[in-house]
Amino acid sequence: MLKIAYVGGGSRGWARKLMVDLALCPELSGEVALYDIDMASARANEEFGAWVQSRPQAVSRWSYRAEPELGAALRGADFVVISIQPGSLECMGAEIAAAERRGLYFPVGDTAGATGLVRGLRAAAAYEGLARAIASECPRAWVINYTNPMTICTRTLTRVEPSLRAFGCCHEVFGTQAHLAKVAAAELGLTAPPPRSEIAVNVLGINHFTFVDRASYRGEDLLALLPGYIERTGGRRERARAEVEAAGDWFQDLCRVKWELFTRWAILPAAGDRHLVEFLPGFTRSPEELFRWGVIRTPVSWRVARWAEAPGIAARTMAGELPFPFDASGEEGVSQMKALLGLGDLVTNVNLENRGQMQGLPLGAVVETNARFARGRVEPIAAGRLPPGPAEIVARHAANQEAIVEAVLAKDLDLAFSAFYNDPANSLPVDESWALFKELLSFSAPWLPGWKLP
Amino acid sequence: MLKIAYVGGGSRGWARKLMVDLALCPELSGEVALYDIDMASARANEEFGAWVQSRPQAVSRWSYRAEPELGAALRGADFVVISIQPGSLECMGAEIAAAERRGLYFPVGDTAGATGLVRGLRAAAAYEGLARAIASECPRAWVINYTNPMTICTRTLTRVEPSLRAFGCCHEVFGTQAHLAKVAAAELGLTAPPPRSEIAVNVLGINHFTFVDRASYRGEDLLALLPGYIERTGGRRERARAEVEAAGDWFQDLCRVKWELFTRWAILPAAGDRHLVEFLPGFTRSPEELFRWGVIRTPVSWRVARWAEAPGIAARTMAGELPFPFDASGEEGVSQMKALLGLGDLVTNVNLENRGQMQGLPLGAVVETNARFARGRVEPIAAGRLPPGPAEIVARHAANQEAIVEAVLAKDLDLAFSAFYNDPANSLPVDESWALFKELLSFSAPWLPGWKLP
Amino acid sequence: MLKIAYVGGGSRGWARKLMVDLALCPELSGEVALYDIDMASARANEEFGAWVQSRPQAVSRWSYRAEPELGAALRGADFVVISIQPGSLECMGAEIAAAERRGLYFPVGDTAGATGLVRGLRAAAAYEGLARAIASECPRAWVINYTNPMTICTRTLTRVEPSLRAFGCCHEVFGTQAHLAKVAAAELGLTAPPPRSEIAVNVLGINHFTFVDRASYRGEDLLALLPGYIERTGGRRERARAEVEAAGDWFQDLCRVKWELFTRWAILPAAGDRHLVEFLPGFTRSPEELFRWGVIRTPVSWRVARWAEAPGIAARTMAGELPFPFDASGEEGVSQMKALLGLGDLVTNVNLENRGQMQGLPLGAVVETNARFARGRVEPIAAGRLPPGPAEIVARHAANQEAIVEAVLAKDLDLAFSAFYNDPANSLPVDESWALFKELLSFSAPWLPGWKLP
Amino acid sequence: MLKIAYVGGGSRGWARKLMVDLALCPELSGEVALYDIDMASARANEEFGAWVQSRPQAVSRWSYRAEPELGAALRGADFVVISIQPGSLECMGAEIAAAERRGLYFPVGDTAGATGLVRGLRAAAAYEGLARAIASECPRAWVINYTNPMTICTRTLTRVEPSLRAFGCCHEVFGTQAHLAKVAAAELGLTAPPPRSEIAVNVLGINHFTFVDRASYRGEDLLALLPGYIERTGGRRERARAEVEAAGDWFQDLCRVKWELFTRWAILPAAGDRHLVEFLPGFTRSPEELFRWGVIRTPVSWRVARWAEAPGIAARTMAGELPFPFDASGEEGVSQMKALLGLGDLVTNVNLENRGQMQGLPLGAVVETNARFARGRVEPIAAGRLPPGPAEIVARHAANQEAIVEAVLAKDLDLAFSAFYNDPANSLPVDESWALFKELLSFSAPWLPGWKLP
Repeated sequence: MLKIAYVGGGSRGWARKLMVDLALCPELSGEVALYDIDMASARANEEFGAWVQSRPQAVSRWSYRAEPELGAALRGADFVVISIQPGSLECMGAEIAAAERRGLYFPVGDTAGATGLVRGLRAAAAYEGLARAIASECPRAWVINYTNPMTICTRTLTRVEPSLRAFGCCHEVFGTQAHLAKVAAAELGLTAPPPRSEIAVNVLGINHFTFVDRASYRGEDLLALLPGYIERTGGRRERARAEVEAAGDWFQDLCRVKWELFTRWAILPAAGDRHLVEFLPGFTRSPEELFRWGVIRTPVSWRVARWAEAPGIAARTMAGELPFPFDASGEEGVSQMKALLGLGDLVTNVNLENRGQMQGLPLGAVVETNARFARGRVEPIAAGRLPPGPAEIVARHAANQEAIVEAVLAKDLDLAFSAFYNDPANSLPVDESWALFKELLSFSAPWLPGWKLP
Repeated sequence: MLKIAYVGGGSRGWARKLMVDLALCPELSGEVALYDIDMASARANEEFGAWVQSRPQAVSRWSYRAEPELGAALRGADFVVISIQPGSLECMGAEIAAAERRGLYFPVGDTAGATGLVRGLRAAAAYEGLARAIASECPRAWVINYTNPMTICTRTLTRVEPSLRAFGCCHEVFGTQAHLAKVAAAELGLTAPPPRSEIAVNVLGINHFTFVDRASYRGEDLLALLPGYIERTGGRRERARAEVEAAGDWFQDLCRVKWELFTRWAILPAAGDRHLVEFLPGFTRSPEELFRWGVIRTPVSWRVARWAEAPGIAARTMAGELPFPFDASGEEGVSQMKALLGLGDLVTNVNLENRGQMQGLPLGAVVETNARFARGRVEPIAAGRLPPGPAEIVARHAANQEAIVEAVLAKDLDLAFSAFYNDPANSLPVDESWALFKELLSFSAPWLPGWKLP
Repeated sequence: MLKIAYVGGGSRGWARKLMVDLALCPELSGEVALYDIDMASARANEEFGAWVQSRPQAVSRWSYRAEPELGAALRGADFVVISIQPGSLECMGAEIAAAERRGLYFPVGDTAGATGLVRGLRAAAAYEGLARAIASECPRAWVINYTNPMTICTRTLTRVEPSLRAFGCCHEVFGTQAHLAKVAAAELGLTAPPPRSEIAVNVLGINHFTFVDRASYRGEDLLALLPGYIERTGGRRERARAEVEAAGDWFQDLCRVKWELFTRWAILPAAGDRHLVEFLPGFTRSPEELFRWGVIRTPVSWRVARWAEAPGIAARTMAGELPFPFDASGEEGVSQMKALLGLGDLVTNVNLENRGQMQGLPLGAVVETNARFARGRVEPIAAGRLPPGPAEIVARHAANQEAIVEAVLAKDLDLAFSAFYNDPANSLPVDESWALFKELLSFSAPWLPGWKLP
Repeated sequence: MLKIAYVGGGSRGWARKLMVDLALCPELSGEVALYDIDMASARANEEFGAWVQSRPQAVSRWSYRAEPELGAALRGADFVVISIQPGSLECMGAEIAAAERRGLYFPVGDTAGATGLVRGLRAAAAYEGLARAIASECPRAWVINYTNPMTICTRTLTRVEPSLRAFGCCHEVFGTQAHLAKVAAAELGLTAPPPRSEIAVNVLGINHFTFVDRASYRGEDLLALLPGYIERTGGRRERARAEVEAAGDWFQDLCRVKWELFTRWAILPAAGDRHLVEFLPGFTRSPEELFRWGVIRTPVSWRVARWAEAPGIAARTMAGELPFPFDASGEEGVSQMKALLGLGDLVTNVNLENRGQMQGLPLGAVVETNARFARGRVEPIAAGRLPPGPAEIVARHAANQEAIVEAVLAKDLDLAFSAFYNDPANSLPVDESWALFKELLSFSAPWLPGWKLP
């Protein structure tokens, strides 16, 4: 009988994926405590969780309970899952619009760049409190973070409470494995892309700016096949706006940025193009520039609409008016839990404090590499070092992320600004950077209690 | 069809273990080229290998061939196994005797301490040439080292040819796992000690001076059980000479040193006591001191005798006059080869250049930690950091070992002496240290060509 | 009797300042060998040097000799002075124009940014040869570099020949001391700014991007006075183009960038604004942006014209048609020589390999801090560490400069591009960055022999 | 009008030297507050100080006042001088005797080795409180430490209160300069040894285990002359006990250890032989071994006797019954104060936290190198790196000293023991080391309040 505490338990995406994965796993059972500052959402998920367990496909026993107090939700948990929205979608919308008025266009805006760093400030402020609460209520629990900015959130947990057993999970690399599976199929003449699990990769970098320096399918070197594939498929050609918009998909990944960087750096970025461009100079300077690379900005208005529709969809699903595919999510949270409980080892990529697994970044900074999950432990696998092209840029982001966390702990505005101005995608002189920084902070004020904002 | 080049292919121990393991492995077949500066021994092993393959228990096809030229032996190899005697047994005997005349008594004498470091000089000199030859003849081969001093030999390979895929294997940690299995049985009331494979350990340190900071059997923390076990079994009591000699076993391990260091440092040394004492101050100051700790010195005369008897034993074995147990050796060489060929992953301890898997030691120095063997790669697992007690002493040895390798590459006597004087087990003032150093070097002169010895 | 080898001895600026300083120094005498790839210029300086020595104000004995061979010029020198133009002014002009076509506007263009880094490539290529020649002809000489990019040139000397005794001198910090002297006068009510030598500063950073974290005049903390001074003088106000152009001075320094960065970072940049803007994001994005900060671009056409006029001016000076003020230059080369010869200690800022004098930058990278010049040695003074704001940006430049030097030694285009794309002032996406890089390289081709340019 | 707080103001050696130096310095005047746990000694020095000031040779105005409270003594001080006895002479005597019973013979016993490290524990415990008091009462004062173990005492001050402006002074290097002056005289045929100030040295290492890698007299390289001098004077010959005892001088320095280490390591140790042997293996293994090297142990009984006689001598001196040579002490405390006050720069060796001045040791550890004293600052001069021979041994001591300080702050016995066992002069196995450690701690118990001793 396990206890999972779900912080952000009103989540309408991650929480429901987890519910299905738990329902499908015969080895585990227990209870899930759902905590959310939006109690109504937590209650909705309590109801939805019970409904999921009532389906005939459910082969395990899990109970869901909305819990209004954080401490009670955490108390005695074996696992803590965190998936929250730092601030509000309205705040996010205001930020992205302000950055655009200064000429900085972010397709996602939640990790790096002006908006990602300020989001990091409010996230770290929230995670500082979470870290303390977890250390007090369930100090030996495994803490799995899904919130962005992934690196800053995960880092805050162990920076504040070094004994926490925390790691961060992101499916971004899975997408690159899927692209590589397509490459394997095309170049090796397979009838279909092999499953992701057969694409062996060595992962190194930081979340959403990870790289793969070795990729193989049954011993075949996939990176060696990549130049031919890119050439043949015209992967590096400029895109037209109309072509990009035609797909009508806010999350499509045309890979042009990935292939271009691979051509230049001889190492493959392992995140979607929408994220990659936010870590680098020049790409985000205009909507046209983004279109040229095949990248479209996800409108925050779409996120707001999706959030608004979610309860109705859930109700109609439970009422049987909408189909509900009872399939494994493809996420690895439950597999990781099983491995940590001694039910079979697992090697996968994960965000962890650097204990040496990645050279060229400071110890302690959170990095993303492969790790081995086994009974009672997550052991990072030494992933080596990036080549100079990306190494310096990754190091800069890592330094900025560390500065954001330290700035939050010390409520040090100048330190936070030093990261903001140093962001590789920043192209504003120092006075204009400061003006934008102040404006973005003003939106975040409710989530930065105790700060003396300028 | 694989090719294995065996350097030191006249070996009478390791080579024959490998022969049986290969004979018992149905997935692999190929040829083994046996190279040895003692061609007669290589030929004897060629014959012995053919005999092993002729046994009914052999389920694979391997041919053995003595090869008089190193280049030819290596050419095109998939794996290179190295297991040589640096210098001669006579040289080793003279060294140990000279050290004893100065009051330094080494039970083994092949890794650390005055004799281990000078052995390291002649080993590194030999390995410098081997590294070049391998890089030229089979640059993509996996190179498995078994020779001591393990760290210095393995390090020389990649220090000289950084692109070599070399690692070093030692069964010393297996013995500690076996001791822990006994602890588990005694403390958990099992009917028999569980197999080694069920004793999960995190390994860190340098060869023959490794440590285990986490050990469990099915989730039970074995290090937590250890104090009770030591207390109950009187594991820390002083031994009398007679008691130690009574066993008549040059390799017995009474664990008193291990338990004492565990009591003091709260981390368990993972090598036999015979090795441990050579890495530390005070233990090797007299035969009586060693006996007090339950340690007896292996006489070099015994090694000489064993070497002399070996051909007769082999002949009688092949003639059916001696029984030949056709059992797996318990060594992991063949399992590692299989994993590297894509036939199943393996996690085990191995000696590799530090790419971050061990904090507190320089990058590049060879360290021993767990690693994951998978198709086409050996990935070290981040093992963390030693506590201060052993950390500083390990760091000192690692620095000395690095100095020995550099000294060989530069033929720099002063640099070699800086390691010699700094050895933790050294208790001689600087002039006497220099005198002993010169005397030991005089025995090694034939294996240090091009050096200007003092 | 000393020998000074002057590489770039046809120089029309630095060389003549040195002549006057030598003429005015009674303690030193000897000969100066003038080497230049433009032999006519060297001969002109030979003539000019003789004329300087013939003036009644000359109190020392120095002879000047144009020397057509580098080896002969260097042979047996006590000091080597290097002040060359890497490439040609035409190349520089083409570079700056090409960068401007891509939207990057550099006021100087010789140190950082797209043009500074490519200039660094051709400079390092030249300095690699110089280092070898000096090591061969006068290995114990003191080597004083004046060429830009200062860091890359100085670093190449010791990267190629680690035993060279090289340092780099730049008067940029003197200008900041002069500004601080004005601040002292204004804020402390002095009748006149005190001499530079009374403004004690702690210097740290890299050439043209140095900082002062402690400045005092007779114990008065000048940085504490600075905010009041800036406020009172309106130092941070935006400038209009007309106002900036009105001065008609290509080298004026209105300090707006300095004061703004000081306000933001609480540490004072110690270079002219024209240099500072090239190290940072945003300032160089348009001519208007530069004007707003009070910065005007020095036209290369002006440099070409000045170079063309110089011989006529020299002739008319020697003919007595133009006045020749026989004053000390304010440069410190001769004072440094005297200190190194044992004629009085000197503490001043200088560019040297980092042996620990600056924390946060790699050992070996060339940094600018104070150092003590004494008989036979230059001892850097530990200058500490930059605050986070500038620290990360300086670290990035230092990494880029190291990459440029390594790229030259390995003729590694990709490594050079990794620095180019990572430059903080770069605001182009990766494909456009690559296109500009290729274009700039095409101008430098004559000075990059043996490279396979794209 | 300055205020100097003298902690340990009952001191009978250092305090009186300072009194004379202050009396002879016309530029400074003020008051000295004498604080001592032995109030009678402080009062005696108050009286003695007044007497010194009453002498006709006194050219300054200083008043001396014994102050029974530490806080009052420190309040508002410009300088704090610390020179205390950590523990008692009786404790020191008991320690040295206990170590000798185990076969460890220390000539001084106050810095390294078993007794030095345990003395370090009680010293650090005292200095932790001093650091807090100084930070509270006179946070901007310059703090000058004279107590041994120098490194541990100085390090504790800034480890506990990082903003303190503390440094440590020791005259040990002066003695080596004096020896080098003799070498200069002998080898260059001078009529007399030149004054110490003309022997320019580069100093690096840790207190009492410093080294000189560059020494010159007017540009002449003294280290190049040293081998001839040692050869000619038989400096490396073995000494007989009788010869050593004949001198009747507990502090004589025959330099045999220095010359031997110089011969082996090609760098000159810059401390007296009595200290050097305590940092190294083998020398301290027996009284005979020490005599062989020309070293005699200072009996603690002699220290006790000297302490007992001191009041009588002072009384007789003030009564005019004993001559009182009114000469500058040769110590540099007053010169340093003058430089810090802006009265002329000074370059000398000093113990300071490592900010980069010494490579190969951790930042923060206290090291001894040259530094420049100027108005309001002490700037360490980058001294470089030790060669491998001493480097590793110095690094070990530095790590041990850091461990002692950390152990005191955490009251962590195991951490302290890790340093104790790792001491290079330790030759005892782990159980005997632990037994000696416990015995030594028992003597120190009164000065380790709050510790749970074993």
